[in-house]
Amino acid sequence: MAAMRDLQGSTQNVLRPGVVEFAFGEPDPALLPVALVRAAAVGALDRFGPGAISYGQEEGPPALREQIARRTAAREGRAVAADDVLVSGGNSQALDQALTVFSAPGDVVLVEAPTYSLALGIIRDYPVDVVGVPLDGQGLDVAALDDTMRRLRAEGRRARLLYTVPTFHNPAGVSLELGRRRRLLELARDHELIILEDDVYRELAYDGDAPPALWALDPAAPVVRLGSFSKTLAPGLRVGWIDARSDLRERLLACGMVESGGCVSQYAATVVARVLEDGGYDGHILELRAAYRARRDVLVAALREHLPAGCSFHEPAGGFFVWLALPAGLSATTLLPFAEARGVSFAPGARFRSDGDDRCLRLAFSLYEPQDLADGARRLGEAVRAALRAAP
Amino acid sequence: MAAMRDLQGSTQNVLRPGVVEFAFGEPDPALLPVALVRAAAVGALDRFGPGAISYGQEEGPPALREQIARRTAAREGRAVAADDVLVSGGNSQALDQALTVFSAPGDVVLVEAPTYSLALGIIRDYPVDVVGVPLDGQGLDVAALDDTMRRLRAEGRRARLLYTVPTFHNPAGVSLELGRRRRLLELARDHELIILEDDVYRELAYDGDAPPALWALDPAAPVVRLGSFSKTLAPGLRVGWIDARSDLRERLLACGMVESGGCVSQYAATVVARVLEDGGYDGHILELRAAYRARRDVLVAALREHLPAGCSFHEPAGGFFVWLALPAGLSATTLLPFAEARGVSFAPGARFRSDGDDRCLRLAFSLYEPQDLADGARRLGEAVRAALRAAP
Repeated sequence: MAAMRDLQGSTQNVLRPGVVEFAFGEPDPALLPVALVRAAAVGALDRFGPGAISYGQEEGPPALREQIARRTAAREGRAVAADDVLVSGGNSQALDQALTVFSAPGDVVLVEAPTYSLALGIIRDYPVDVVGVPLDGQGLDVAALDDTMRRLRAEGRRARLLYTVPTFHNPAGVSLELGRRRRLLELARDHELIILEDDVYRELAYDGDAPPALWALDPAAPVVRLGSFSKTLAPGLRVGWIDARSDLRERLLACGMVESGGCVSQYAATVVARVLEDGGYDGHILELRAAYRARRDVLVAALREHLPAGCSFHEPAGGFFVWLALPAGLSATTLLPFAEARGVSFAPGARFRSDGDDRCLRLAFSLYEPQDLADGARRLGEAVRAALRAAP
Repeated sequence: MAAMRDLQGSTQNVLRPGVVEFAFGEPDPALLPVALVRAAAVGALDRFGPGAISYGQEEGPPALREQIARRTAAREGRAVAADDVLVSGGNSQALDQALTVFSAPGDVVLVEAPTYSLALGIIRDYPVDVVGVPLDGQGLDVAALDDTMRRLRAEGRRARLLYTVPTFHNPAGVSLELGRRRRLLELARDHELIILEDDVYRELAYDGDAPPALWALDPAAPVVRLGSFSKTLAPGLRVGWIDARSDLRERLLACGMVESGGCVSQYAATVVARVLEDGGYDGHILELRAAYRARRDVLVAALREHLPAGCSFHEPAGGFFVWLALPAGLSATTLLPFAEARGVSFAPGARFRSDGDDRCLRLAFSLYEPQDLADGARRLGEAVRAALRAAP
């Protein structure tokens, strides 16, 4: 809990003293590689000179695109060239841009139920209809997706986009099973449904490798894969990238905002290029993976120890989140004051759904040291018991 | 023309050897304060630690908002507190965000005719109708704006937004006269027309101070002033700011993209905060002003010397642009090949209008040394004469 101290009030979320804030799903500032970034911040200006801080190419700096292509080819087994990669300002910016470019008023945008709450906020800024499709322990229910698309078509509506987090889902912690990935890609090709694949947690895999990205499985499918350095390097750099079929890339590049301002994170993107060129990034990811895996292990064990019967969750194999189902009849919003009175907080499940279903809650294990996580789980168990006792 | 060499291919616009590219309205990379930024890039990490690269407050880093408020109060005479300022990712990002937040499908967005071509591109990404309002040597024709709004209302349409560059206009080089500014603010208040005031050239004033910003003249008016460090510090940092009435600021902050990713340029914004705290910024602006004033003077004199009768322009008192009206019957697009054959280029006027009128062209004087500008003006004069001789 010391990690967020002394940040000069500049950060997005402020931790309350004495509260384990399971609500905040962000990297632990204490784990950010300040020294790596510091060296690269200077190195980028030394290498690129004024080019690092001029209007940048719309596609992003070639040096960064080259590094991303090299890493992707080596780690994901899909050949990709620097020219195939677009640099973004992080996945929130990329999602916003994708909605600007790919959606029209009245379109249906499909999302998982539950889905990432703040992505829902981005989508709701557009004049589209959001329709949720359920997921289970194996990720998005692809048969339900098919049914939903048929129903929409029968109603004369068109599902244009699917926003999905198939790998280490936020908030559900699950990953889409391989057979379902293939079926989803078939559906997308058949219906020209553009898949916005939010792949931000790929590198944070704790039990072996992450499953293959939708983008990597099928070069012909209309997939826009959103990759990010926000969880593995630093969120405040606001740098990510986009892999997509060439026609979709061209539409993204024709975005007026990018044509006007050039690369949306030009200087930061050259800094990330230097970090990748300098060679410390892979080692840093291994350290992160070990640290977050230990936190995952502690939280999962402590939840199993302290939660009463009737609670359940899938152990996440990567990412930042445990999605906890509460005993029947207890809603997350009802539980919240019991939890806060005991020094623990969380994000109620209703935030992650368009239908308001509140039977689950999200716990993030990224921000705290193991001892804090264990304390938080114990307090949460006490809160659940107290809320059940108080129930009418 | 050496300025753009050796930028490792990372920049948005690539200059052709032997051509004076008057088309590119961007700061000269040779004038970017690389050393100032280099020191601040390290200073930001030393001062803010991991906070500089964590998810940032949606409003932007307090240290930068404090510096901007202090500068604005001192230079523009309108009292403003840090809490009144929002940090943006530059004016292209801010304009895009404003359209997301303030426009609805079918709304009319008013622009000047001519207007900044790439802003037109941003606006056209939204499902709105763009309507141009003429300007003259004193800026936007405010009486014509009033007529246009009345006509639209009679047709049952609503003008929701006006995008304007009232100070050192891009492309027209003119500034809105003070009486017109006051009348425009009255109209905006009466009709709750939100003015998006692109104020990016304010600090680059060559003949005394810039006129007061619309935002500074009337705290009660619905003005969103977009300020930027792109022309005075470095475009590739992607940092600007927004001044607006508090209700408009709140709507801008409720944007899903910002709620999700936090400050859109967090690290770069802390770098800019350090530049401003370090004290070298004001001196740098004085140097820029002297350099760009000299370029303006050379270009204006050379155009007067070399252009044939029938050409005309207003001498700009700031900014980067001369808007040149061609002799009757000669369009800019017709002239362009004559110019390129002689080693000079420019942006044809039709790019800056929604009605395709092409009687003018834009010359930017920011990117070249004086001798190149003089050569370019001479070549342009030859091209105009040649095109007139070739006319049927």
